[in-house]
Amino acid sequence: MTLAHASAPTDPAVLAAALEEVRSRVPLVQCLTNVVTTNLVANALLAVGGSPAMVAVPEEAGIFARIADGVLVNLGTAGAEQREAMVEAVAAARSAGTPWVLDPVAVGTLPVRTALAARLVTEEPAIIRGNASEIRALAGLSAGGRGADSIDSADDSHEAATTLARSTGAVVAVSGAVDLVTDGERVVRVATGSPLLTKVTGAGCALGGITAAFAAVVEDRLVAAVAATTVLTLAAERSARTAEHPGSFAVGLLDGLHALSPQDVRDQAKVR
Amino acid sequence: MTLAHASAPTDPAVLAAALEEVRSRVPLVQCLTNVVTTNLVANALLAVGGSPAMVAVPEEAGIFARIADGVLVNLGTAGAEQREAMVEAVAAARSAGTPWVLDPVAVGTLPVRTALAARLVTEEPAIIRGNASEIRALAGLSAGGRGADSIDSADDSHEAATTLARSTGAVVAVSGAVDLVTDGERVVRVATGSPLLTKVTGAGCALGGITAAFAAVVEDRLVAAVAATTVLTLAAERSARTAEHPGSFAVGLLDGLHALSPQDVRDQAKVR
Amino acid sequence: MTLAHASAPTDPAVLAAALEEVRSRVPLVQCLTNVVTTNLVANALLAVGGSPAMVAVPEEAGIFARIADGVLVNLGTAGAEQREAMVEAVAAARSAGTPWVLDPVAVGTLPVRTALAARLVTEEPAIIRGNASEIRALAGLSAGGRGADSIDSADDSHEAATTLARSTGAVVAVSGAVDLVTDGERVVRVATGSPLLTKVTGAGCALGGITAAFAAVVEDRLVAAVAATTVLTLAAERSARTAEHPGSFAVGLLDGLHALSPQDVRDQAKVR
Repeated sequence: MTLAHASAPTDPAVLAAALEEVRSRVPLVQCLTNVVTTNLVANALLAVGGSPAMVAVPEEAGIFARIADGVLVNLGTAGAEQREAMVEAVAAARSAGTPWVLDPVAVGTLPVRTALAARLVTEEPAIIRGNASEIRALAGLSAGGRGADSIDSADDSHEAATTLARSTGAVVAVSGAVDLVTDGERVVRVATGSPLLTKVTGAGCALGGITAAFAAVVEDRLVAAVAATTVLTLAAERSARTAEHPGSFAVGLLDGLHALSPQDVRDQAKVR
Repeated sequence: MTLAHASAPTDPAVLAAALEEVRSRVPLVQCLTNVVTTNLVANALLAVGGSPAMVAVPEEAGIFARIADGVLVNLGTAGAEQREAMVEAVAAARSAGTPWVLDPVAVGTLPVRTALAARLVTEEPAIIRGNASEIRALAGLSAGGRGADSIDSADDSHEAATTLARSTGAVVAVSGAVDLVTDGERVVRVATGSPLLTKVTGAGCALGGITAAFAAVVEDRLVAAVAATTVLTLAAERSARTAEHPGSFAVGLLDGLHALSPQDVRDQAKVR
Repeated sequence: MTLAHASAPTDPAVLAAALEEVRSRVPLVQCLTNVVTTNLVANALLAVGGSPAMVAVPEEAGIFARIADGVLVNLGTAGAEQREAMVEAVAAARSAGTPWVLDPVAVGTLPVRTALAARLVTEEPAIIRGNASEIRALAGLSAGGRGADSIDSADDSHEAATTLARSTGAVVAVSGAVDLVTDGERVVRVATGSPLLTKVTGAGCALGGITAAFAAVVEDRLVAAVAATTVLTLAAERSARTAEHPGSFAVGLLDGLHALSPQDVRDQAKVR
C-alpha cells in the first residue's frame, strides 16, 4: 500500500485502508516472543486477519525470517536459545528486507535483555513499540553518552521517543492512556483505548504482533504503527462496552479484533 | 475397549462409546508440546475428561512416559532441551507400549523439526495428526526417495496420508474443512466442524492431545482418531452456535468439550 | 499490615483487610513458573490487584528478586536454565528478605524437580503451596529418614503439612475440596471453592501467585495464605454461579478476582 499524502497517519480513511490491506493480504508474521503471552499474540494476529508463526529456534528462525512478511521480536522471557534465534532472525530480516518490530519488554534494569536490546536496536527495526519507561531506557542506550537519566526526567516520553526514532531510524510507538507514535519528525497521538488494557497481561505484546502485521503490508511505517494502535484500542473500546472485568474483557478484545470493520476505524478513530 | 466390527470407525455408537471410555477411565496424557498452545491442550484434555501432565524435561520425560496412558509429541516450538526429552519419551513409550501421537507442526521447510520428525516417525507412533501440508511433507520424508514434491501435486492429501500410514504403521489424521483419517487401508471422513477453528491458535494442537487421550483407552487406533476428531469438531459446532468471533468461540470450544455427551456424538456425528 | 490477635487467620475482617492491602499496595510479584499456566498466573495477579513480572532468566532473576515484593517459584516445567534462575532468585530473595512461595508441582516421582525441591525447601520459603500428594512427598523429603511412605498412609494431609511446616519454618497450604493451611501449630481450613477449579489447568498455580502477593503485604504468613486461598475460592464460587463449564468458568474466575470486594470476603469467607 503506497500512501501519498503527508496527513496520511492521521487520516482515518488511510488507517481503515491499512486494515483492509491486512485482511486481504493475510501477512505471515513470525513471532519470537515471550512464553507468557505468546498465545494471546498468536490469537490477536489471527483475529485481526494475519497469519502468525511462532518460529523461534536457532537454525530455523533465520530461514523463516526470509519467508515471513513481518517479524516480531519481544524480549519478555528470552532465554539463551531464544536470544540466539532472535539475533539470527533479525539479521535475516534485515538482509531480506523483512520489516521487523522490537518490543523491548522491561529493558533498563535487567542486564541480559538490555544488552540484547542494545545490539538489536542497531539492526534497523522498522518499528519499536514499548511503554514509556522502556522507550526512555532504550533511548538512553541508543543515545550513548547522554544516558537514560536525563531523559527520564522529561515530562513525558515524547522527547525519548523522538531521540530513539532519530538514532535508530525506526518509528517509535509508546503505549499509554494516550499512545504516542513518532518517526522522529511527525508525532501522532492515538486517544482510543480502555483502562482494562492494563489489567490483561500481554495487551502490549499483542499490539507488537499486530504492528508487525501492519508493517508487513503498509509502506509508511508511521501509518502502520498508528493503524495497528488504533485497531487494538478500538477493539478494546468495543470489548469494554460489555465487559467490566478483565477475564471477559480479554475474550472481548479478541472478538473485537475480528469484528472491527474498516468502517468502524473510519468512524471511531481518534488520532491527531 | 475392544471393537469387533469392521464398520466401527464410522459407527456413531462406537464413537460415543469411546467418549464414555475416556470419561470413565480419565487417561493420564503426557504432553511434550509447544509453548504457544500448551495451556489450551491441557484445558482441552481436562474438559474432555482426560488428565494432562506437561512433563517435558530430560530425565523426567522418559520416566513419565512409562507411567502415562498416552503421550503427545508436538513439534511446534521444540528447543534443544525439549527435543532431547521428546526422543527420551518416545523411546520409553515405545518400549512400555504406551501409545503416542505425533503432531508434526510446520514440518517440511524448517530443518530442525523436520530432522526430528524424520527420526521420530520411525519410532512407531500410534497416530500422526497434522494438516495437509504437514502430512504431505512427512509422507515425502517417510517415503524416502520418492520426495515430497510429487505428493504435493496430488489433488488432496489422501494419497500422502495413505503412504504415510503404510510406511509408518500409524493411523494418519489430516485436519481440514473435512478431516480425513486413514490406517492405510480404511479411510474415514469427518464432516463436522466450524471455520472458526482456523481462527483459534492451537485447535489442531488440542486435537492432538485429545487424540492421545482416545488412543490411550481405545484399542482400534482408527476409531480413536475418528472419535477424537468427531468430539473436537462437535464441540466446535456447539460453540459456533452462539459465538461469532474467535475469543468467545475458544471459550465455547472448551465448554463444548466438557458439555458434549455420548448421546450428542451418536446424534450429531457425520462420519463416512 | 500487622495483625495483633491470635484468632486473626480465621477472622473474615482480617482476611478482607489483607485484600484491601494488596489492592492499595499493588505488590510486585516475580514469578518463575511453568509455561503451561504462566498466562493465567499473570492475569490472576493483575485481576486481584498485584503486579506480575515473569523474570526467570539467569543473571536477571536474582537482581529482580531483590526489587520484587514477593517471589513465586513453581516447578511445573523447569528446564535447566529456569532451574538455575530459580536457585539464583531464591538465594537473592532470602538474602533480601523478600518472601517467596514454593509450588512443588508433581514433586515425588519425578527426579529432577524433586532434587530441586529438596534443595529449595532449605532456603526458607515463606509459604509452600501444593496438593496433598505434593505436600506429602515434600514432607517426606524434608523429614529425611522418616520417608514419604508412612506419611502417605495418613488419613489426610494434616500430619504431612504439620511436619513440613515445622521442618521448614514455612506456612504450608494444601489445596483440596477443603483447603488446609498450617504454620505447624495453628491449622485453618478454608471451605469455599468449586469443583470446576479442578477442570481448569493452573488454578493451583494461580493460587501460588496470589499467595505470593498476599505474603508480600501481610506480615502474618498464615493470614496471607488463608486470605489468598479465600480470595481465589470465593472468586471461583462467584464464577460457578453462572458458568457450568470450564471455559466460561476460567473467564469468570479472572472476572471474580477483579470483582471481589473486601466486603464480599467479610460476608462469604468460610474459615475455621
